[in-house]
Amino acid sequence: MDFDDAVRFHGHVCPGLAIGYRVAQIAEEEFKERAEDEELVAIVENKACGIDAIQVINGCTFGKGNLIFRDHGKHVYTFFKRGDDRAIRISSHPRGRSHESDDGTLSEEERRKARIQKVLKLPRDELFVVEHVQIEPPRKAMIYQSISCAECGEDVMETRARLKHGHIVCLPCFEGHDI
Amino acid sequence: MDFDDAVRFHGHVCPGLAIGYRVAQIAEEEFKERAEDEELVAIVENKACGIDAIQVINGCTFGKGNLIFRDHGKHVYTFFKRGDDRAIRISSHPRGRSHESDDGTLSEEERRKARIQKVLKLPRDELFVVEHVQIEPPRKAMIYQSISCAECGEDVMETRARLKHGHIVCLPCFEGHDI
Repeated sequence: MDFDDAVRFHGHVCPGLAIGYRVAQIAEEEFKERAEDEELVAIVENKACGIDAIQVINGCTFGKGNLIFRDHGKHVYTFFKRGDDRAIRISSHPRGRSHESDDGTLSEEERRKARIQKVLKLPRDELFVVEHVQIEPPRKAMIYQSISCAECGEDVMETRARLKHGHIVCLPCFEGHDI
Repeated sequence: MDFDDAVRFHGHVCPGLAIGYRVAQIAEEEFKERAEDEELVAIVENKACGIDAIQVINGCTFGKGNLIFRDHGKHVYTFFKRGDDRAIRISSHPRGRSHESDDGTLSEEERRKARIQKVLKLPRDELFVVEHVQIEPPRKAMIYQSISCAECGEDVMETRARLKHGHIVCLPCFEGHDI
């Protein structure tokens, strides 16, 4: 999987995807593998475009549960391998923004393209701070049984079910909304 | 993008991915497009393997913000196109589980493979209930500016920043944990 695969998956190319690709490359170099199942885990602290590159390159995907989202609004990415003590934490370099060059002659589209090329080419240490850290690994994704909601009749995972007037119901029926 | 692309992205083939692929195909037939940006939106009510197929086939991805997760633990998927009234809601057919055939002679791996083939081949109306519905579209993903955290010095999206002793800090510094 390479940058073109990430662009194809994401649907377009943008600076955010390029940043995520550079993050993903660092994790790829560190762990030398793409997660077939959920052995490699990414904890991401934002949900911007770059996360799509991590999904493609590192195989840490939303559907497998090895992409863990912490809603911190930060460009911070921590990767670890289950059963291994090594974790790396990748964060934006404080000087990162100084690379936003613009002499005022470029159109918005040209600036965008130049930014993408710059992100793809800059030495990694100018873009990121990479640290080896110790973390408490989050538990693995679990599979629970489903039961039928007494109101709508649809199946619901038992950990998300609620009780209403003595009946087991799903959350939308419990809360009285459609989605 | 086809089932092989979904398998390549997901990292392995499994019944859950096959179910997600069948869901994604229904949305693809309905809307005739893969989201280049966030024009097509999927609201998914679980985060199991099948969601990876939706990301690949429909282009509704975690990084673009057009994959909206409602943690209901239900096999329910609602798709809509921004600027359009059409929304489709796809849910597991109540009879779906009766297709789990097993005469007791199959190994676990054989049962798994048979289940995948069955999911890929069954007529869609035996697997799902598909309805056209009206929904209130969730708002589009927003981009906010980042500011520097007074404690760790890292950038934080302003909507996720907090105040601590009169200083602007990020959530991990506010809550006193590392991740």
